[in-house]
Amino acid sequence: MKAAHINAVCRAARNIMVDHFKVDVEPDKPYTGKSAVPSNDVSVVLGVSGELTGQIICSVNNGTAKNIVGTMMGGMEVKEMDDMGWSAIQEFGNWVAGSTATELSKESCIIDVTPPVVNEGSSRFHSSKTFITVPMKSSIGSLDVHISLESATS
Amino acid sequence: MKAAHINAVCRAARNIMVDHFKVDVEPDKPYTGKSAVPSNDVSVVLGVSGELTGQIICSVNNGTAKNIVGTMMGGMEVKEMDDMGWSAIQEFGNWVAGSTATELSKESCIIDVTPPVVNEGSSRFHSSKTFITVPMKSSIGSLDVHISLESATS
Repeated sequence: MKAAHINAVCRAARNIMVDHFKVDVEPDKPYTGKSAVPSNDVSVVLGVSGELTGQIICSVNNGTAKNIVGTMMGGMEVKEMDDMGWSAIQEFGNWVAGSTATELSKESCIIDVTPPVVNEGSSRFHSSKTFITVPMKSSIGSLDVHISLESATS
Repeated sequence: MKAAHINAVCRAARNIMVDHFKVDVEPDKPYTGKSAVPSNDVSVVLGVSGELTGQIICSVNNGTAKNIVGTMMGGMEVKEMDDMGWSAIQEFGNWVAGSTATELSKESCIIDVTPPVVNEGSSRFHSSKTFITVPMKSSIGSLDVHISLESATS
């Protein structure tokens, strides 16, 4: 996987946090080499097809998930995740999906992203490709972006 | 979602069980109306794009997962899931993906399926579309096929 593509995915996630949520984001050092990653409490799974195929998984803990939903709803405090909360998290996934497709297209890489599916609960994801993980810290909590993509021609 | 497409996905999963694993499969009555489904212990998540977009999630319990891996490995007993086991479950997902694309193409519906990602652990999946679930019973265990697909033009 090309560094330019990984950077594009990270830019996409960062842009949503900065432009939509108006929070500062500090990306941590990416790490790789794992074929399994923890889901934390809440994970948004985006399938990718086209010139790259695989998944992008955005994982957060419960507190960050509630902060994301609260921020999306104009700053209200979210005490418990309900159907509206899950719907908002899916919408967050749609934003990341759209932003990812746009940022990759700037690198001349054309992809389709599936509608998001959200995983709730502590579990692990296994992929045949090793994941590249970009941890991001922000004032509304930490976000791990797990990237498992390969060139469709490889 | 058209019944013909749901039936094609079910045929795809059933064909893998019957043709590759040589087990009898008895599909149960499908049900729908849920925006969240349990992952059981092991779920294979397949992203779908093209004329249909969304996810197909195949969920099994630990016992069935071990039976699937054992059957794929020529009938050996699998006591614990290791890296080879997870790799085999991913391969099972690839078989279902390929079979699904083929069966849907027979219904003049052209899709791309992403490489599978496997979820391990008890959790739940939320989707913006309600899931259609087809439970299947076989001699190596039960398999739930959760389908959340929408027409790309809708």
